[in-house]
Amino acid sequence: MAITIPSSSTFSPTVMSLIPLFYIGWADNLLSPSEIKTIHQGLSKFPNLNTADRKLLDQWCNPAKPPTAQLYKQWKNLLKNAAQQSTDSHKKNWLELGIEMAKLQSSNSPDTENALRELYETIGLNETSIPDSLYSKSQRQQFEEEETSSFSVPKMKSILDDEYEELRDQMRTLLSDPVLHADPEAIRTKADYREKVLEWCQLLADQGLGALSYPHANGGKDDMGSYATVFEMLGYHDLSLTVKFGVQFGLFGGSVLFLGTEKHHKKYLTDTGSLKLAGCFAMTETNHGSNVRELQTTATYDPSTDEIIIHTPTEHDSKEYIGNALHSKIASVFAQLIVNGEQHGVHTILVPLRNEKHQLLEGIRVEDNGYKLGLNGVDNGKIWFNQVRVPRANLLDRYGAISDQGVYTSPIENAGKRFFTMLGTLVGGRVCVPRAGLSAAKTALTIAIKYATQRRQFAPSPNEKETLLLDYPTHQMRLIPRLAKAYALDFALSYLGKRFANRSEADIREIETLAAGLKSYATWFTSDTIQECREACGGKGYLHENRFADLKADADIFTTFEGDNTVLLQLVAKGLLSDFKKEFHDEGYRAVLRYISSQMGDTITSYNPVFKRNTERSHLLDAEFHLDAFRYRERQLLYEVSNSIRDYIKKQFPAYEAFLKVQNEIIALALAYVERIVLEQFLEGLKTVKDDPCQKILTKLFQLYALSTIHEHRGWYLENDYMNGSKSKAIRQQIYNLCGDIRPHVKDLVNAFAIPDALLKAPIAMSM
Amino acid sequence: MAITIPSSSTFSPTVMSLIPLFYIGWADNLLSPSEIKTIHQGLSKFPNLNTADRKLLDQWCNPAKPPTAQLYKQWKNLLKNAAQQSTDSHKKNWLELGIEMAKLQSSNSPDTENALRELYETIGLNETSIPDSLYSKSQRQQFEEEETSSFSVPKMKSILDDEYEELRDQMRTLLSDPVLHADPEAIRTKADYREKVLEWCQLLADQGLGALSYPHANGGKDDMGSYATVFEMLGYHDLSLTVKFGVQFGLFGGSVLFLGTEKHHKKYLTDTGSLKLAGCFAMTETNHGSNVRELQTTATYDPSTDEIIIHTPTEHDSKEYIGNALHSKIASVFAQLIVNGEQHGVHTILVPLRNEKHQLLEGIRVEDNGYKLGLNGVDNGKIWFNQVRVPRANLLDRYGAISDQGVYTSPIENAGKRFFTMLGTLVGGRVCVPRAGLSAAKTALTIAIKYATQRRQFAPSPNEKETLLLDYPTHQMRLIPRLAKAYALDFALSYLGKRFANRSEADIREIETLAAGLKSYATWFTSDTIQECREACGGKGYLHENRFADLKADADIFTTFEGDNTVLLQLVAKGLLSDFKKEFHDEGYRAVLRYISSQMGDTITSYNPVFKRNTERSHLLDAEFHLDAFRYRERQLLYEVSNSIRDYIKKQFPAYEAFLKVQNEIIALALAYVERIVLEQFLEGLKTVKDDPCQKILTKLFQLYALSTIHEHRGWYLENDYMNGSKSKAIRQQIYNLCGDIRPHVKDLVNAFAIPDALLKAPIAMSM
Repeated sequence: MAITIPSSSTFSPTVMSLIPLFYIGWADNLLSPSEIKTIHQGLSKFPNLNTADRKLLDQWCNPAKPPTAQLYKQWKNLLKNAAQQSTDSHKKNWLELGIEMAKLQSSNSPDTENALRELYETIGLNETSIPDSLYSKSQRQQFEEEETSSFSVPKMKSILDDEYEELRDQMRTLLSDPVLHADPEAIRTKADYREKVLEWCQLLADQGLGALSYPHANGGKDDMGSYATVFEMLGYHDLSLTVKFGVQFGLFGGSVLFLGTEKHHKKYLTDTGSLKLAGCFAMTETNHGSNVRELQTTATYDPSTDEIIIHTPTEHDSKEYIGNALHSKIASVFAQLIVNGEQHGVHTILVPLRNEKHQLLEGIRVEDNGYKLGLNGVDNGKIWFNQVRVPRANLLDRYGAISDQGVYTSPIENAGKRFFTMLGTLVGGRVCVPRAGLSAAKTALTIAIKYATQRRQFAPSPNEKETLLLDYPTHQMRLIPRLAKAYALDFALSYLGKRFANRSEADIREIETLAAGLKSYATWFTSDTIQECREACGGKGYLHENRFADLKADADIFTTFEGDNTVLLQLVAKGLLSDFKKEFHDEGYRAVLRYISSQMGDTITSYNPVFKRNTERSHLLDAEFHLDAFRYRERQLLYEVSNSIRDYIKKQFPAYEAFLKVQNEIIALALAYVERIVLEQFLEGLKTVKDDPCQKILTKLFQLYALSTIHEHRGWYLENDYMNGSKSKAIRQQIYNLCGDIRPHVKDLVNAFAIPDALLKAPIAMSM
Repeated sequence: MAITIPSSSTFSPTVMSLIPLFYIGWADNLLSPSEIKTIHQGLSKFPNLNTADRKLLDQWCNPAKPPTAQLYKQWKNLLKNAAQQSTDSHKKNWLELGIEMAKLQSSNSPDTENALRELYETIGLNETSIPDSLYSKSQRQQFEEEETSSFSVPKMKSILDDEYEELRDQMRTLLSDPVLHADPEAIRTKADYREKVLEWCQLLADQGLGALSYPHANGGKDDMGSYATVFEMLGYHDLSLTVKFGVQFGLFGGSVLFLGTEKHHKKYLTDTGSLKLAGCFAMTETNHGSNVRELQTTATYDPSTDEIIIHTPTEHDSKEYIGNALHSKIASVFAQLIVNGEQHGVHTILVPLRNEKHQLLEGIRVEDNGYKLGLNGVDNGKIWFNQVRVPRANLLDRYGAISDQGVYTSPIENAGKRFFTMLGTLVGGRVCVPRAGLSAAKTALTIAIKYATQRRQFAPSPNEKETLLLDYPTHQMRLIPRLAKAYALDFALSYLGKRFANRSEADIREIETLAAGLKSYATWFTSDTIQECREACGGKGYLHENRFADLKADADIFTTFEGDNTVLLQLVAKGLLSDFKKEFHDEGYRAVLRYISSQMGDTITSYNPVFKRNTERSHLLDAEFHLDAFRYRERQLLYEVSNSIRDYIKKQFPAYEAFLKVQNEIIALALAYVERIVLEQFLEGLKTVKDDPCQKILTKLFQLYALSTIHEHRGWYLENDYMNGSKSKAIRQQIYNLCGDIRPHVKDLVNAFAIPDALLKAPIAMSM
């Protein structure tokens, strides 16, 4: 029996149930040919569709005849009517509204409902909430009060915390301790701030955290995975502390551990881990930062006294930006080793800097680097050595030693290979830095998202509440794709951490490439995200109390230290190119083609014109499409760059010049590689998630990361005819839709980062 | 007579002269069909081309048969030979090398030289220097020592300084005075820093700079143009001082000047201009920043005492971020005016805050906003009013007055119109802020470019000098397009300044739109550029002494204050949409088409498939193409957005919702409008340049700005089939080429900004 509806005509239950579909389809002009096809296919499965209804629905499907304003208004009134009948405490999605619409008229047949469900799910209407405007004012208020979530925050937290959940929780508690916090005014000058950070660092060492990665014999736990996790968690605290901690235990301690031998471990590691011995890592020089191989400091062996003489040749060759330079007693100094007049390349020598009274030793000069853009709690300085003598035993001699007879020996004959092997052992910094950076980005996202779900500005009409910032589409586009990327990076960096913890000789080069690439990609993400979040919080974001000031300033150097991102990406690309070259070296062009097609596997679809134009939702949201697009881009760039270089070299350009000529493309290639890895690892991570609601929202984040990245590169994809303009536009529409779908869950998604209020601090991120 | 050349065969002079063309063409695979056509046309003009030569050259043009490695090597040796014969003190371009090549073999005919010149100029080879690798080592060293410039730096400076060169030079001298500088350590705490900035501000006021825009009768010069120029120049100094100056003289003084009447001018302006009376501009509230119309502070007229009562209704409705809040004696308070129980919207009332002893008056509470991300020399604070009474005369009554009879009157009936008119008078801030921001960006560019032309890293081979950073293509792409954009913005903001200084009732709305758009576009450019420059200077960029720390932190709020950029761009778009609507209001679809085609004028070419695929250099560098592309994008977006909104409204969506649905596109439209204005004004500015060498390099900058912007939006252009993939790739190649062409002139181009060393300060920007 039909109820009274505000219209002149009466629709059958089936037609009623389909009105939401047409209402939304016509509203956003989504009725593309492929969608219409989908609707027709869906309709054929409805058991009780009579001829009149079929004819009516066909009319509604006709793209040449959009509904009249009257008809559209009638639909809207019917939908409002149905929505306002509801007494549910949660917002309906379009499918539920469709079912409600049918119920209003008569009892429902289960077959019809199944057909309806299938059709709506294909179009994705089971996942999108109906707009607020269909509800009454009182319903709207009610919904706002009880924001419900579809997934369990503790379960999501466990997924992110992974195997280190216990350690992470311990760190959350430890770092919330008031003793690890200071009033901002109290650490405004670098002297005060450095003092405080040194104190904090000692407290962490007292907890045994500094020595985690060292052998059991040297006071440690031989647990690199836990060390990296601690470093990541420090990223939620003060980044000066994070860096100070990393310099002392990771860089200085790491140089002793990885470049030294048993005798060095015994003598130094325990005191390093307890911070009884403060050390610094003296690699970078004023004139040589990226180009470490050309460091100018010399370490000359003097057989007459069995000592090594450390010397800075000119004023501009001082060590620079050396963290811990003012607090440390000893330095691991990177210098050109000269034995019997022969230079053996960069080696590392332990050089005491200060005596017990903390006075500089003879021949050593240290100068404060002064204030920096950020990280003013870290004491960076310059160091000069004037003919400083240390015993031969101070040479960290794992990869190059001087025998008792004063002869240089090394397990690695080739000087270049030796250099890269030594540097390779220090890759831990590049594994850790992006993780601390991601913590900083998550902090920024948490603050900006919490603010955007409380802050209102501008009302639809004079008597209504103002709109929440996060309900503005532009605001969603600023924050939600970045939230998705933070999740993606979480999985990818966790993968990198595991690969690093379990590394072997065989895969260390691959891990170096991975670390260099992810470090660059993730730290740029950090800078970009903090900046966007600051702006998204307007004036409030500019107040120091709301954290962006320090986050921005402190994390800014992450794109430069542990390897400048632009330089690192060139290393990444060179790694990819040399693998590529190896693969087909002497086989020529056909081998290349074979290689490409073997690597692309199922990407043949991409040459298919149907694929190129496919704008169906199911296709656009399909991980197979995403993987194909990411892999295609990487392979294509690899092939092009490789070809260009070969071409230039064939034309007598020196290799160096040939590389320069394609330098911009080389950077693009390296980033394409990283993005492909991130996508794959996000997908791999997703597969292991057991909890269904968590997997569902993670899938949305995955899709959003994938499509945002493709959209970011749409210029490239269109240039290369991988897709056409309509597909590119359809992808943009899906990005908007995904932002809308994820919108109700954003607060829970940042709550799953589980950053304690004591660390978050920002007043605007606290509930008012 | 042929000289001995290192090859088995001998080429004719004409062929010799063409070898550079083929060498470079084949090297970068630039021999596209259109280039080959150009070459054939060019060859037909050579008078003495015999059949054998013609045949040989045809072979070299065959894209199916690239030259063999031997032939290519032979070319290179011939070119090297010619290059190394040269005793010129400047680097040759390809045309000069071609002429040299011909000379080597015999005497030259002028006709041949003319034909050669014409051909090389068409391809642009007269503007590109030949690569260093063709020269000998000693030549290379010589060139490096004597970098010569093609244009006069003082002339370029005069072009940029425009009609205010004298004032700008005075400011350069004034701001270099040591009395206006402090040791960074001395202004580390906000208390010290604020004290210093107040002192400096007084010194500027003593020079008469604060009152410049005020009427002669009130101690001023009635010269808005000079005021804005002074503000811009302050952007080279300390941005805290810039903002403090703007708050006192521009915002507070401006509110008295533009919203008050004669009596207010008389009473307050002279003391404001001399800083005897420190004032603040109390508009923003904690809960209402962008949405000024809904400010909560009330100003209720009490007829019984003829007073106005200022009141902050709740704790969260305090005024916030108010600059000068701690130093000022008086505030211009924006509040809802209520007369006889009727609310008349936001009006401005002068409210004394403190007495002569600087004690707060009764009912007034002020709280320090504390440390901020930057601008810590400015005393921002919160202000609450508790039933504070001021005389009726304190109402700034130009647009709304209370008569002696206690009746509200206004020259503008409509409350909305009145509100926007009042705000419109305050647009000066939006005119000034982007100019100070541009000064900050120019400072960053100067530092990064000077560093990049001194700093070396990585050598081509062990015995060579390391490469200058700016000779890396990636480094060029980071800095040179931004340098071009800084020049573009210089012209555009200078245009805005002139429009503003000469504004009338008739064009004030247009100027508001212009100011809102340019403010957003320019301040985002500032943030982006400072960040990129910091990263481009690596570790050195992170040291406080090198300026990026303060530039980044201080300029960061420019994207938020004087109107949040995202909000402003929506205003811009609304302005464009309402003009568009006005144009065809009742005429319907055909009128729209007519409108579009009238506006697009000569853009019919864009529908032409030849145009879409045209990759010829002359076309890509043609301003007509650039104008067409920019205008096409703006019009197309305007049409689409307008259409979408109309569609939604037809479908019964409330206007507010319809706008939200296209909010992302609205932002794109507003930016497209700004970009078109910037391009046009750069071109207009170019036309007035009389000096030929300056015009030549400015033209390159114009082309680079144009093509970089088109390239940035290539996704959009490709989606919309405005160009095809090959054209997009060809544009990228032209961008690389332009960067290479401009590279030798970058140092002079930043020197033309004429920032005194005393202001630049950064040690890395000083010659070593």
